[in-house]
Amino acid sequence: MSSSREIEEGTGLALKFDANGLITCVTTDATSGEVLMVAHMNDEAFRRTVETGDAWYYSRSRQQLWRKGETSGHTQRVREVRIDCDQDAIVIKVEQVGPACHTNRRSCFYRAIPLGQTGTITLKMD
Amino acid sequence: MSSSREIEEGTGLALKFDANGLITCVTTDATSGEVLMVAHMNDEAFRRTVETGDAWYYSRSRQQLWRKGETSGHTQRVREVRIDCDQDAIVIKVEQVGPACHTNRRSCFYRAIPLGQTGTITLKMD
Repeated sequence: MSSSREIEEGTGLALKFDANGLITCVTTDATSGEVLMVAHMNDEAFRRTVETGDAWYYSRSRQQLWRKGETSGHTQRVREVRIDCDQDAIVIKVEQVGPACHTNRRSCFYRAIPLGQTGTITLKMD
Repeated sequence: MSSSREIEEGTGLALKFDANGLITCVTTDATSGEVLMVAHMNDEAFRRTVETGDAWYYSRSRQQLWRKGETSGHTQRVREVRIDCDQDAIVIKVEQVGPACHTNRRSCFYRAIPLGQTGTITLKMD
């Protein structure tokens, strides 16, 4: 068991998986910095991503490992992997081929939530 | 229960919380686009954030609602809130006062994981 200090200040990997064995992955566009999607990785997806430079995820709905773009062709070539202080989230910066979102939009975050709302909150399509 | 199409293409809020009643929040710097931190919100934290424009989270370790900076002074003024296709993750773009990370670094993602590694993976401090 690593100490909190080792986890935060060390250079040893000590991924903190959730109860389902997953960590959160934020995927950003390596050029613009835009957040493209948020997905999950298990240990195998993480290792394949670091080893190969292709983005691999774990699909919670399909319960399987998944190389981004393997069916759609919308692959992600990873330029950089970063990890946060407590090692339970990573950011990958990618070169995205085509849209990242399954709705065929560049990013999954295509709707804004205007500030100042109370009660019934509505979204705004860009 | 909203249909998948309504959730993805509609303008109605239909947050998909996890088993603990939380959604993932990615917080980025409104100016640079840099990912500052990844945290969680429950329904109340989300609503307070949208209503007030201050970033509120839910601390899983302390099991309580938490306004960013309430003790440290390192507040986040929210400029934009965005939500993803299946409504289980949000991005907030903020004006960060001081460091976002409790380690006093600007971002929680202060370590890189060099690509191409197999076996024992090590991190690299920036």
